[in-house]
Amino acid sequence: MRPGELLYEGKAKRVLDAGDGLVVLEFKDEVTAFNGKLHDRAPGKGELAARLSARMFELLEEHGIPTHYVCYMGGSRLLARRYSVVPLEVIVRNYAYGSLLRRMPFFKSMERLSRPIVELHLKDDERGDPLVLPEDAVEAGLLSWRELWDIRSLALRVNSVLELFWRRRGLRLVDLKIEVARDSHGFVVVDEVSGDTMRLVDSSGRHLDKEVYRRSSSVEALLEAYRELARLAGEPKRRCE
Amino acid sequence: MRPGELLYEGKAKRVLDAGDGLVVLEFKDEVTAFNGKLHDRAPGKGELAARLSARMFELLEEHGIPTHYVCYMGGSRLLARRYSVVPLEVIVRNYAYGSLLRRMPFFKSMERLSRPIVELHLKDDERGDPLVLPEDAVEAGLLSWRELWDIRSLALRVNSVLELFWRRRGLRLVDLKIEVARDSHGFVVVDEVSGDTMRLVDSSGRHLDKEVYRRSSSVEALLEAYRELARLAGEPKRRCE
Repeated sequence: MRPGELLYEGKAKRVLDAGDGLVVLEFKDEVTAFNGKLHDRAPGKGELAARLSARMFELLEEHGIPTHYVCYMGGSRLLARRYSVVPLEVIVRNYAYGSLLRRMPFFKSMERLSRPIVELHLKDDERGDPLVLPEDAVEAGLLSWRELWDIRSLALRVNSVLELFWRRRGLRLVDLKIEVARDSHGFVVVDEVSGDTMRLVDSSGRHLDKEVYRRSSSVEALLEAYRELARLAGEPKRRCE
Repeated sequence: MRPGELLYEGKAKRVLDAGDGLVVLEFKDEVTAFNGKLHDRAPGKGELAARLSARMFELLEEHGIPTHYVCYMGGSRLLARRYSVVPLEVIVRNYAYGSLLRRMPFFKSMERLSRPIVELHLKDDERGDPLVLPEDAVEAGLLSWRELWDIRSLALRVNSVLELFWRRRGLRLVDLKIEVARDSHGFVVVDEVSGDTMRLVDSSGRHLDKEVYRRSSSVEALLEAYRELARLAGEPKRRCE
């Protein structure tokens, strides 16, 4: 499989055309935080994120959740189906943290929510990925109510599967972000599922996610956390031929 | 009625204790926009806003919508019942404008919404009055689902009454902001209902609300618009003895 044309380059990944409706996701050895204000080279992060994402997508597929994942190519690459992404980020929260605390300071930090909160954010770096209402997305013609319902259900299923997986390994899933795309049968989970898109804390409250870097600016501390996540998650099984 | 202790002073109003569970709302001759970045003295604005608010509260009461309003004291003052306010602003939108366009640029400006969008914002100047989800307010313990339902219904009724009132006078109600307080029977509309809290445009698209000042920085143009609103709305009837 020889990657071709660069279709997209983001802060953490490149997407390369692989023909036949497929793309190569190449995870970069870069870490950024605070919408790019903090950034560093992080040698080895690409491979850790690719392996963990591959493993997480396999887990979701095992639970009947459709994703764009095809197989793990080794190193920092995985092969996926090509989709055009819905321009929304879907966040599911189990504990009050991050931007939820900033907009609603009545929560205690890390307060357990009685049920998960599902948020939609517009994917728009310039605007700082603003929170939007379900009504906004429908009225603006981005999605139908039926589609919103499907996306919400999908996000909650992803949350349940990941929450249980990590709980069995001693970690709490604080929140997660997914991106989704339409296919002929409904929606599929795309993008990545890694320490950049899940917040995970152990029983002592220690983070094993990008929060480590946000707090310490230390690349080595981040890589240490990501190695721990990769060890806990195990290896991806579906290797590309 | 002799106003006593100053209970609260905001950008556009003072609230003074009047004893017996009552307060005097005194509207200031001040105009501010962009969260206080733009501000000016606006002689006569206080009286225009007080008269219009009094008239609007009377209109809402005529339609069975409970408010804090008691009577118009003349000048820039009205008498109201004292309540502790829920720390949320409730916005109802009939057309896409303002912060809705900023968070969801897929709308055309002034696009008619197929149904009104109701938003909750935390009342918090420092945070820029952030949009919050209904779930946030419930999970944080600010409100119950039942109360949210009541507030939403109240806001939509206010919107219907004001929308019809202004339509009959040739103006479109673009959006409105209300504040609410709990009383023993449910929620009541408090604060003010004026050109500072409603966006109103005529058939040529001309604003008769604070947008005039936001766009032109002209106090005289604003006062002219507010005089026009006051003329269209008519005089308050319920004068304090």
